[in-house]
Amino acid sequence: MGGVFISGAAMTRFGRRAESLPDLMAEAARGALSEAGLEHPDALVVSAMNPEEFTGEGNFASAIGTHLGLSRTPSFRAETATSSGAAAVFTAYAAVASGVYRSVLVVGGEKMTHLPTPRVSEVIGRSIDKYERSYGATMPALAGLVTRAWMGHTGATLKDISLVAVKNHENGVRNPLAHFQEAVTLEAVMESRLVADPLRLFHCCPISDGAAAVVAVSSPAPIRIAGIGQGSDYLPLRYRDNFIGFRASQEAARAAYLMAGSGPERVGVAELHDAFTPFELIAMEDVGLAPQGKAARMLTAGETALEGRLPVNPSGGLKARGHPLGATGIAQIVELCWQLTGRATGRQVEAHVGLAHSIGGLATTNWVTLLERVE
Amino acid sequence: MGGVFISGAAMTRFGRRAESLPDLMAEAARGALSEAGLEHPDALVVSAMNPEEFTGEGNFASAIGTHLGLSRTPSFRAETATSSGAAAVFTAYAAVASGVYRSVLVVGGEKMTHLPTPRVSEVIGRSIDKYERSYGATMPALAGLVTRAWMGHTGATLKDISLVAVKNHENGVRNPLAHFQEAVTLEAVMESRLVADPLRLFHCCPISDGAAAVVAVSSPAPIRIAGIGQGSDYLPLRYRDNFIGFRASQEAARAAYLMAGSGPERVGVAELHDAFTPFELIAMEDVGLAPQGKAARMLTAGETALEGRLPVNPSGGLKARGHPLGATGIAQIVELCWQLTGRATGRQVEAHVGLAHSIGGLATTNWVTLLERVE
Repeated sequence: MGGVFISGAAMTRFGRRAESLPDLMAEAARGALSEAGLEHPDALVVSAMNPEEFTGEGNFASAIGTHLGLSRTPSFRAETATSSGAAAVFTAYAAVASGVYRSVLVVGGEKMTHLPTPRVSEVIGRSIDKYERSYGATMPALAGLVTRAWMGHTGATLKDISLVAVKNHENGVRNPLAHFQEAVTLEAVMESRLVADPLRLFHCCPISDGAAAVVAVSSPAPIRIAGIGQGSDYLPLRYRDNFIGFRASQEAARAAYLMAGSGPERVGVAELHDAFTPFELIAMEDVGLAPQGKAARMLTAGETALEGRLPVNPSGGLKARGHPLGATGIAQIVELCWQLTGRATGRQVEAHVGLAHSIGGLATTNWVTLLERVE
Repeated sequence: MGGVFISGAAMTRFGRRAESLPDLMAEAARGALSEAGLEHPDALVVSAMNPEEFTGEGNFASAIGTHLGLSRTPSFRAETATSSGAAAVFTAYAAVASGVYRSVLVVGGEKMTHLPTPRVSEVIGRSIDKYERSYGATMPALAGLVTRAWMGHTGATLKDISLVAVKNHENGVRNPLAHFQEAVTLEAVMESRLVADPLRLFHCCPISDGAAAVVAVSSPAPIRIAGIGQGSDYLPLRYRDNFIGFRASQEAARAAYLMAGSGPERVGVAELHDAFTPFELIAMEDVGLAPQGKAARMLTAGETALEGRLPVNPSGGLKARGHPLGATGIAQIVELCWQLTGRATGRQVEAHVGLAHSIGGLATTNWVTLLERVE
């Protein structure tokens, strides 16, 4: 298996964007290609969760290829719901590691803010098992259920999950590409409108537009993909072993560490899928960055803050940077590339190995990617 | 790059099916796993062009994983419009060749017959560039345009493109899994209702339900994937070099032959994407199985018939076997596996190397796969 490196990484500002999805994806793609010093990658992998229903476009990889001026570059789409960006990075990884292609441009994005929120929720909600959906389950409702179980098991409090929002908004203030670049107070989070007990509005990530891109190559570059793994679990929550963690995250981490030949002890910075703020804490435990039940304590001790021992979501995470579904898994990798190479101006941390963690659906198809700075 | 083999292949009967899409995909998957002697593949790649809009399902790879009893197997979806099945085979190929997985189940399918035909046409039609769509372009309209240009250039006649239907329906009679298992006369084809000049109803493949599956493995098995390649072209037809062939097919074939280290001369049987019957003849020329402009002559000389020198679409092709979009690229591989290992009862041909050719959109994202019987 050959080494796979990242020679370019870029993203658009996330948020409510007027540009079309193809234009956003072109902005990110051009940035990544430019940094890679590459005009014509061997192939293009595109990620978007549902361009058909969000923007009315089909044959999406071809559409984006044409829009990028890469009409004649082999292109295909990878999809695993809200973790599609990470799936696209994996597809590129495999295509390069297999020797089929030497360079693959990965670009992902989503555009949703032009639609009414109930329509966005309906489309995303179809990631849930249809029988559970028929009883009224929504993403926030199921996330609330898991959060309550995890809080009961670990003793974490409403204040703990609210402090994740405070921390990630603080980081967002330092990220000029974040959807939210404003701090929030603990009180504002805890008093925000209830969405699905115990989750309040400020525990939930926003609906965002945006795009992100990386270039995966076989020739040495400053960042190496040291490990990448996927984990899955039952679509229906009612079949799962427990609600105090996500098996899909645990398995993804196990596979990524196995490939990398090292464990969580080498990770110095992490981008975790905080679509709901408690998920950041659950993920810390699932991927081994915190002992089981201790993530909240690490957070409150400041260990995951920007100046802490193990900064988590220096970008602001999904909570503050935003969550344009097909872009998110790639944007995490972009942030880690910048952090690992000293280009995260204003929010720079010191780290050698970074971990990205992406959740698809309600944790049915999760990915963990380990990036390492090449000496 | 390690060798990648196919250790199991199966498909459902194509046609108007009462079963759900997950049930059809489970039938195909179980058949392929059973032949492979495998209960738990390392990973699952799912293909469907648009399960969201055809069947209302999202997070489709997880849904199918759960339905197959493989909830905890890594799973992801590959999509390249109507060639998604071939894209899934490529994704599995790369994942195995890279050494990440030793065995990957590939299962693809689509269910469309429960919808009104105009709705199916609308969804598929979104594979066309949106400006061309805004002027009323549909898949058959653009296919008719290309067909007229190709006929003008090669001298092929309406009778020639009609004889493709006659041949493929004859083959379908011998395929118990085909959508159409009835012969058609030349007169019936030529007198069928005009769809988009010169294409008549019997020049067009049906709307079908169905699923197909293969197991790709790193350990030696009777069939080896000798080459697999993708080719792309401008989404808008107005930008293309000419209409007398498809660049995406030509490039896909070039890449596949390059990987295989041999050319069309070794191919003994082919499954070509005859969504419109002239496309079979155009594909023969594009992938080098016929000299430019000579495909119609080969057809009328009987060379591509079941007992001919180079049987094309022994399964009946998309025209008679049917075209459940996400299944088709895999079903072609299934047919070739059966042909190359002497299990195509009633329609068996003699061949050592088989070629599958799949078209995505109006030839924007095409694939060619070369399979070889291992001695």
